[in-house]
Amino acid sequence: MEGYIEPRVLKGFRDSLPEAEVAKSRLIAILEKSFRLFGFVPIDTPVLEYSEILLGKGGGETEKQVYRFFDHGDRDVVMRYDLTVPFARFMASHHSKLYLPFKRYHIAKVWRGENTQRGRYREFMQCDFDIVGTDSTSADFEILLVMAKSIQALGIDRFRIHYSHRATINRLLKRLGLEEKSVEILRIVDKLQKAGIQRTESQLAAITDEKKIKSILNFITIEESTEDTLTKLEVEAGGQGEDTIRLKQIAKLIAELKLEEFFLLDPSITRGLDYYTGLVYETYLSEQSELGSICSGGRYNNLASLYTDKKIPGVGSSIGLDRLMTAMERIDKSGNPESRRALLILCMDEAYLGYYHTLASTLRDAGITTEVYPEKKKLARQFKYADKKKYAFALICGEDERKKGTVTLKDLQTRESYEDLTPKDVEITIDRLVVSP
Amino acid sequence: MEGYIEPRVLKGFRDSLPEAEVAKSRLIAILEKSFRLFGFVPIDTPVLEYSEILLGKGGGETEKQVYRFFDHGDRDVVMRYDLTVPFARFMASHHSKLYLPFKRYHIAKVWRGENTQRGRYREFMQCDFDIVGTDSTSADFEILLVMAKSIQALGIDRFRIHYSHRATINRLLKRLGLEEKSVEILRIVDKLQKAGIQRTESQLAAITDEKKIKSILNFITIEESTEDTLTKLEVEAGGQGEDTIRLKQIAKLIAELKLEEFFLLDPSITRGLDYYTGLVYETYLSEQSELGSICSGGRYNNLASLYTDKKIPGVGSSIGLDRLMTAMERIDKSGNPESRRALLILCMDEAYLGYYHTLASTLRDAGITTEVYPEKKKLARQFKYADKKKYAFALICGEDERKKGTVTLKDLQTRESYEDLTPKDVEITIDRLVVSP
Repeated sequence: MEGYIEPRVLKGFRDSLPEAEVAKSRLIAILEKSFRLFGFVPIDTPVLEYSEILLGKGGGETEKQVYRFFDHGDRDVVMRYDLTVPFARFMASHHSKLYLPFKRYHIAKVWRGENTQRGRYREFMQCDFDIVGTDSTSADFEILLVMAKSIQALGIDRFRIHYSHRATINRLLKRLGLEEKSVEILRIVDKLQKAGIQRTESQLAAITDEKKIKSILNFITIEESTEDTLTKLEVEAGGQGEDTIRLKQIAKLIAELKLEEFFLLDPSITRGLDYYTGLVYETYLSEQSELGSICSGGRYNNLASLYTDKKIPGVGSSIGLDRLMTAMERIDKSGNPESRRALLILCMDEAYLGYYHTLASTLRDAGITTEVYPEKKKLARQFKYADKKKYAFALICGEDERKKGTVTLKDLQTRESYEDLTPKDVEITIDRLVVSP
Repeated sequence: MEGYIEPRVLKGFRDSLPEAEVAKSRLIAILEKSFRLFGFVPIDTPVLEYSEILLGKGGGETEKQVYRFFDHGDRDVVMRYDLTVPFARFMASHHSKLYLPFKRYHIAKVWRGENTQRGRYREFMQCDFDIVGTDSTSADFEILLVMAKSIQALGIDRFRIHYSHRATINRLLKRLGLEEKSVEILRIVDKLQKAGIQRTESQLAAITDEKKIKSILNFITIEESTEDTLTKLEVEAGGQGEDTIRLKQIAKLIAELKLEEFFLLDPSITRGLDYYTGLVYETYLSEQSELGSICSGGRYNNLASLYTDKKIPGVGSSIGLDRLMTAMERIDKSGNPESRRALLILCMDEAYLGYYHTLASTLRDAGITTEVYPEKKKLARQFKYADKKKYAFALICGEDERKKGTVTLKDLQTRESYEDLTPKDVEITIDRLVVSP
């Protein structure tokens, strides 16, 4: 097509077509409702910030991946690459106006110039929720509870939240004299699920001796019961500590709320990041564990240390929306129940458009999605359009019906027609058919 | 604070604190619901696109304002500065997969490096909705109807949508021999509301003679009735044309749906942009016309001409979310009715946390926003927290209540306490108080 610009999108970016966008907005609406019921409130931050502020003293891996440039005012700026650093900056900016504990969620896009060969996108959504300003067991437990309840709200019943405490394994490593290699070891252990026991063992062999490897592997094994695991952890870590007390309290709360089937004390969970200092967790779908964790996070002891001397401990979690979307497509919760309360008014005669739009307004007032086909095109084409938009019904009002003051409702699934309805009957008929199709 | 990075945000950018974010998300939810009832579907496009594609052959004003840079792959990219150009590119990319007419809405952020001195932001939300693939009267009317119904859905009853047709004034200008100066003249006329009649007159004086100015000013005057205005337009434009026929059909549909009070045929509406070819419109709030138009748009005859030889006519509208937010704050629709179904469970004793969380879960299942204060802090502090979060109730369960198996509900507005409630009574009591406070 000469003279035309080819309408490409950048590699790693994508359009969201209506079907995907409807599913995404439904997913987000359910999550938001769940968060709000727990007293979490939404915030937003700018997409562009000063590089100096978002990248901090850091650099390394992150720096290579971000979209960073000089704006027209020659300011060194960067597009946000996660929602954690902006949240830290936000807390430092507004702590005097806010109250603690502060419970926020933030669902927004972030950008990373990652290698797209691994199926990664350079623009994607994150969904973070945190409770900051308290180091309590209750907050730790509440984050776990929000996770469980939110996943359930999505209609997913078969999942497990694996949790552990960073300090417990750190005590073990200290006892084994491996303190200085702990970052390396935690990273290896963290990948146990993916790598499997043998590969983990051989990776550890490059760092320490057989006896200590055995200790580590014994430590990260899940025992028959939570009590057994807890007992082992205390023995191996060198006795009771604040960390094991916290784990016991959390296990007790899980039991008290009768949620044991959704939780698993799993000492192999360490979360690679240095950032975490307390409870850590990951979530796996029972039938789709290969997707990886769909919701993870942990406790940190100082959120905004780059920006303020105020110490802000917190606990938070992040949902992988893309993974969750994939999971839900596979589970195929066959769509939105509302979607059957939807119809197309066929355009039989353009002279009736005023009547069609009046009818449509009345039906919308009753909460029925109603569209008027705007032109008198062939009926086959209009029906095809209704089909494309997945409308459950078509409403027909041509000359005959108009004279009688009635309409015909057609169920597009069963192909059944309901004739001689008054406009008032339409709503009743739809509701009857939607409830018992 | 030595050693700390000052947590600034860029000029023209801002954080959104919970209160603003809640109001915004409520506003958007209402608009989305309204759009969806009409069969509009959501889409999304990447924030970053190739500069060549979004900026087209263009340049000029737009180019100076955009955030444009070279990414790590040395691609010339730009952050989207509106939702219209990406939509055009989207239609060109996907037309084979889509059906026509296609009705989409898109609510998202855009970025422009505008001068912030005029109170403009460099990052702001746009909300666009369009019907493309049809040049019908029905689609024109439907866009107007969506506008009216959406504004009403927000609880705003006093507004007027001013509409006109670009071709009618173009016919007048042609008749006056001012065809070549039409862009200039339309821009001046378009600012009539702001500039006033005298300034408009003197600006026109630089372009044409007194007699023609008189003709133009007579043309753009609103007459006593829509019929009178229509008659004048036809006479002045040189007789009946497709444009005046379309205007008559639209006026008839407005009357048929009994919506006259919300519409005004106003020939001074021209919308400065070259882009529009048919119907054009702007919306003013009756008590806050100084805010400017809160929702405007028009018909265009070829959306995606840069990218494809497919001719895609359409009609669309854009809501100024920031202006609307300001307007709604002023109207002060005193907030969300749900917000009174919300409570804080005070932490009287940390040993009862399991019980508190169990209670909270039950209340949330009943749709009541329930938060557990996570630590045993002074009661004054816990009450202050409930106040900050605008919770309507506090739930108290200390040693006495726990022994009796009851709780005390405190209405934080009236300061009234309701004692000896069983957990089941709580929901009933709240609903009684919320309905008749």
